[in-house]
Formats: sequence, C-alpha cells, structure tokens
Amino acid sequence: MTETPLSDVPGGTITTPRGFLAGATHAGIKYPEPDRLDLALLSSERPCAGAGVYTQHAFRGPPILITERHLANGRAQAVIANSGVSNSLYGDEGLRFAEQMAEYAAAQLGVAADDVVVASTGVTGWRLPIERIRDALPNITLSPDGGESFARAIMTTDTVPKQAAVRFEWQGATYAVGGCAKGSGMIHPNMATMLAFLTTDAPVDPAVIHSLLSDAAGESFNMLTIDGDTSPNDMVVLLANGAAGGETIGPGHAALPLLRAAVTHVAVSLTRQLARDGEGAGKLLVVRVEGAATVEDARRAARAIVLSPLVKTAVYGNDPNWGRVLVAAGYSGAQVRERDVALSIQGVEVFRGGAVPFDEAALSRSLAQEEVRIELHLGAGDASATAYGCDLTPEYVRINSEYTT
Amino acid sequence: MTETPLSDVPGGTITTPRGFLAGATHAGIKYPEPDRLDLALLSSERPCAGAGVYTQHAFRGPPILITERHLANGRAQAVIANSGVSNSLYGDEGLRFAEQMAEYAAAQLGVAADDVVVASTGVTGWRLPIERIRDALPNITLSPDGGESFARAIMTTDTVPKQAAVRFEWQGATYAVGGCAKGSGMIHPNMATMLAFLTTDAPVDPAVIHSLLSDAAGESFNMLTIDGDTSPNDMVVLLANGAAGGETIGPGHAALPLLRAAVTHVAVSLTRQLARDGEGAGKLLVVRVEGAATVEDARRAARAIVLSPLVKTAVYGNDPNWGRVLVAAGYSGAQVRERDVALSIQGVEVFRGGAVPFDEAALSRSLAQEEVRIELHLGAGDASATAYGCDLTPEYVRINSEYTT
Repeated sequence: MTETPLSDVPGGTITTPRGFLAGATHAGIKYPEPDRLDLALLSSERPCAGAGVYTQHAFRGPPILITERHLANGRAQAVIANSGVSNSLYGDEGLRFAEQMAEYAAAQLGVAADDVVVASTGVTGWRLPIERIRDALPNITLSPDGGESFARAIMTTDTVPKQAAVRFEWQGATYAVGGCAKGSGMIHPNMATMLAFLTTDAPVDPAVIHSLLSDAAGESFNMLTIDGDTSPNDMVVLLANGAAGGETIGPGHAALPLLRAAVTHVAVSLTRQLARDGEGAGKLLVVRVEGAATVEDARRAARAIVLSPLVKTAVYGNDPNWGRVLVAAGYSGAQVRERDVALSIQGVEVFRGGAVPFDEAALSRSLAQEEVRIELHLGAGDASATAYGCDLTPEYVRINSEYTT
Repeated sequence: MTETPLSDVPGGTITTPRGFLAGATHAGIKYPEPDRLDLALLSSERPCAGAGVYTQHAFRGPPILITERHLANGRAQAVIANSGVSNSLYGDEGLRFAEQMAEYAAAQLGVAADDVVVASTGVTGWRLPIERIRDALPNITLSPDGGESFARAIMTTDTVPKQAAVRFEWQGATYAVGGCAKGSGMIHPNMATMLAFLTTDAPVDPAVIHSLLSDAAGESFNMLTIDGDTSPNDMVVLLANGAAGGETIGPGHAALPLLRAAVTHVAVSLTRQLARDGEGAGKLLVVRVEGAATVEDARRAARAIVLSPLVKTAVYGNDPNWGRVLVAAGYSGAQVRERDVALSIQGVEVFRGGAVPFDEAALSRSLAQEEVRIELHLGAGDASATAYGCDLTPEYVRINSEYTT
C-alpha cells in the first residue's frame, strides 16, 4: 500500500466519510450496565450503493438473511446493529425480529425498510428482546461524530473498539473510506460473530461495489482466523454514498484501483486489530506466503499455518519451532516440496531446502514482541497471500472453558 | 460390535496372533536413560499379506516412502521402528537411512529387505543416528511375549502404551487380531507422528487386505483428531500371516465381515486410547453423528465438532454449551438444517429443532467424567459416523509452548 497516495486518518471512523451519521444507546439487551452501549444506528444522508459478504455457515442467522435480501438490489441507506443477543438459532420468530429491526430503523429515519442493513451479535439461541430495541431506538442521536459510539456498541468480548479510516485525492476531490469491526474470538455463551462495516463518500457504481468489497475481504477478513470457528452471523458490508462528488466510479474507471486500494487498506487495518484482540491473544501473528503456484495455494498455506495450534503455542512460548510451520504448510493442500521451500521467522532465515543454522536464543528473544512475522517462500510460482491470527495462550482456554450459565 | 462374537483379549498385543515375534532395545537415539526402549522389531515366522495407509502430507518422510514401496506387492514379513528422531525433513540422506534400517533388519532376520516395513517417530529435521540403530539391533531378542516392549519402544510423548487384541472363531479355527499405536499429539520438538501396527494370524488374500485396513482406518484412526495437525510420518500397517490356518479369506468369503469387524474393533480401541492420551487431555470426547445425507457428511460434521477449540474448551470446563456444537456442525460443510437437528450431550437432549429446556447444573456435573459423548442427529438421511478427540486444556498450551531447545 505504501506506493499509493493513501493517508491514514488518525482516529478515523465510519463517519469520517462525508454524509454519514451514527449514534448508539443502551437498550439493555443483555448487559445491565447503563453506560454499556448495545444498540447502534448508521445512516447516510442519501441512498448508497451497497454490498455485503456473508458467512457460508449452514445456520445463517436472520440478520444475514434479511441483510442479503435488502442488499440484493445493490442499494441501502442505513444500518441497525445490536450486541448482547445474536438472534440466531431461534427459529421463525428470529426472522420476524430481524425484519422488525429494519422496520423500526426505517420508520425513525424516514427511509425504506428494505434499504436497512441488520446485524446482531451476542448469545446464540436466546430470544432477542425486540421490545427493548423498539423502545430504545428513539434515544439514539445521530451525529457526524457518532462513528466511535457505533463501534463501541457492537463490541462483545472485544477489549477495544476497532476503527480505521483513510483519505485519498482524485482529480481535485478528496475521498474517504472508513470502517469499524468487532471481534472474531468466541466466549461462552456468545458466538464468534465477526461484523465489519465500511463506508465511503466516493460515488461508486453499483456494478462494481460487490467486487470492490469481495476483493478487499479476500485479502483481509477472509484471511483472519482466531480459532477456525465461524459463526452464523458473520458479515461485512460496504456503503458508498457519493457525498464527496465527482464522476461515478464504475467498471474500468481510472480511479477504481485507488479506491480498491483504499477499501482494502481499511479492511486490512481492521483485520490486524481484530487479530491482535483475539481472545486471550498476546501477539499478532502475520504469515506471508510467497512463491505459491496459485493464489488459492498461497491462501491455503498461510491459513493453515496461522490456524495450527502448534504454531500458535510456539509463538506464545517464543519458540522458533520452524518444523511446525513447515508441517502445517505441508498438510495445507498447497503444492509444496521440501527442497524448494525457504522459511524466515522475524526476518531470520531458518530453512532453505534444508535446515539453516541460526542463533536460537536470539530468535527466541526476537519472538517476544507484540507482532510475529513468518515468511514462507514455496518456490512453486508467483502467487502470494497474507494471513492474520494470534498466539494460543492459557488465557484462551481459561476464557472459553469458564462455565457461566 | 457387541452383536459379533468377538472376545477382547485382556493384555493383548501385536504378538497375540500366532506366529508373530517382537522385541525392543535401547539404542540411545535421543533418550539417554538406558532403560528407555527406542528401537523395536516385529517379525512373522512366515511371509504376510500386508497393507499400509499413509499420511497425505506434502512432506511425506522417508519411512513412508520406503514402506509404501515395500508394501506395493502386498507382502511383508517384518517391521523395524524407532522413536526419538523422525527421520523426516532431512533431505536425501534421510531416504538412505530409511533404506538402511530395512537392510539391517532384513540381514538380522534373514528376510528380503523389501519385505521390511520402516517407521520412525520423534524430532523432525534432526539427523537419524543410523549407526546406533545398526549397533543396537543385534541386542533385540524376539519373543512371542515381546508385543508390549514393541509398543513401549515407539512411544514419544505418550504417557501409556496403547495395545489391544481380540479373538474370534470361524469353522473350528480361532483367529486373533492384535495391535499397538503411539500418540497423535505433538510436543516440541517432536512431531505428531501417529503410528499403528495391526497383526492377525488369519489367512488373508492380498486382494482384500488393503480394503480391510482402509475400511478399519476410515472408522477409527481417520476419525481421530487431537489438534488437527498431521505429520509427515503417520502410518497404519496391517500384516496377516495365516498362522492360524484355515481357508484363505478373499473377496466374498463368508468370514470376511467378521474379520473386518475384528480389525475395526482393535483399530477403534487403539483410537480411543490415543484420544484419551492426547496431549494435556483430561477427557475422551466421542462425537456420534447420525441421520446424515452421506457418510462423508457424517464424518465432516463429527470431525468439525471434535476439532472445534470452543467445543473442546467447553468440554474441559464442564459447560453444556450446545450452541458451540451446532455451530461447528453448521460450518463443517455437511448438509444440515436448524429445524431438522436433534442434539444430546451425555444422553440429555438439549436441542430438537430449537432449544429444549434441561437441567444445566445436572448436565454440567455429568460432564465431569472421563468420557464425554455428544450425539447429533441431522435428520437428513441414514448415514452415520463417530469421531474421537479430547478436551483442550491449559496443560496442552503449557506442553506445547515450552521452549526446550
């Protein structure tokens, strides 16, 4: 990304792009603390081109089903989201609740119900207290500074809100892309819902908005794994309202690559924040695979390494255990041959067609950092990919084994 | 299995079937303690029909490559196995070492080198001290009581040897099937090699021995997962020497189903022992999936559940967290619909097309046992499968994060 003229916006949020307003309130959906935000609203002053990518889970929850239906026409204008209860695995009544969330938001904002995106995260199998959502919604004050409240209201086990924004110029106009996300670890009895919302004030042709989002997600959220479990409610949504003016960016438009880089940049930033805040995580683990025969191979190998419990425990223990990394690449399904492989950990080469002598004590010390980087060259082609994860710690086991019912 | 006339042999080993001799010694391959067995030999008094199933790992180690070559003709007569060093990821020299192991064993036993199966487990990437194997091999005394020594010599992080044997009668003859196995958890710097050896004195036609083994492995070792990592050296081998006499059991033979049941029974027993002795494991986790559209679907769902870190931590914490079980089934790729699913934990129904009220405190107490059984009915067909695993404990993280170099 460094070669593109993107500038990070310190403290940027989903309302950094012009024409977006957000806010949140305490509806008491699950958390009793009166200052705990759990209901959020995002609204655009004008209709947006919109797209979503969704979990492939067999039990896709009502929020996914309703959002997918509402975004089928490539158009949306608002998002309503809650934390506390995920409104999934609750039968037909859950579907009705998700529809009602869209209806309440639409009535309050004066937009069509099918222009509202619906998202829920929290306990699975519980009844969503839809009445509390209905009653609390009018308490939300929308503002161009409301992005952070939105980001806080969708948190569950997250310890910090995840936000990012970036700006770039194109032919005299300044465009912004903003985003927020919530955690992908799970905690009893919550499910691992990963939610991310991206906004931009660039004028985007509905014909390209889905590929814009799916390209960005393919390099970011889809390469994130905390523990391999996915939830019935995972979704990523992109809304583009065009409030910054200028030519509509459609297929083949000269600004499209820059816009794609900006959306991807924000998505990768959110992904790194999500990985670093994985449950019980002490370190961000970044695995870069190059020289793969295909992009799919590169992604397979990178994901297998970042998911391996043995690699993750070694990272936790500052153990430069290169064998575990190679073994994970070997069972990933990617095309890989022992004699063609080169591996570096924290910039130190440890294997090149065979073990390479290195200073183990020094490398172990170098592993005691907040970010660990593993780079594997497969020597099989030109494709590459990066995956993001975290170490596996005793804290992860503690958090997830506590019986809290 | 209870409906078949199979009788377990208490204390049974790979030498329970007639005509098999085994023994082991201390070669000092890695472990310095002089009473630590690390080199083992199994020999049949006569040539055997033989078959192997092997890891699909991209870095298949020299022991796999040599064994696969030697068993290509469906014939073998001996096994040489060592622990301490896995002889994998060591380049072309490792391949030569594996050949030499077969040659040394063949010379000592007076059999052909290509009738020798070779297996190694232990540290990856280290040089195998082949000279110590050569020098120690003559110290091994083979005996019909040597099965347990063999089982002990192949242990790495295993806390107990895994062995089983069963007998059955057929038209006046008594046949036995025996087996041993070693652990599938990993510990630094050892790799997760899973080795299993099965023997029988039944006369088996080489035309059926591979399917006999692969059917048994499909219901047992292939359904075992401790942490999802597989190693370059995993193998399961079956040798049948016919020492008990009788008609050769070939395709369509009336005794074939009984023999298959016996081999599967021993394989499942070893699999349960392996799961219970997984690294840091406190409990055996058995997941039974029924009502699946296909066997592949049943296996997918059962494996996903038994592999889920969230299910495994819940089992550790005595937490009857049915949501995590359903979520794992949902992302497994198996065909599954919320309204068709029924789930029981320790025999208590907790979900049937929707949450079912149950006594959570009582079920939590019932989870505090050495074996936890989860039963999921998908309502999509008639296929079923059982997967075996263990809980995820702080001890697993501790063992695998210790930096021991």
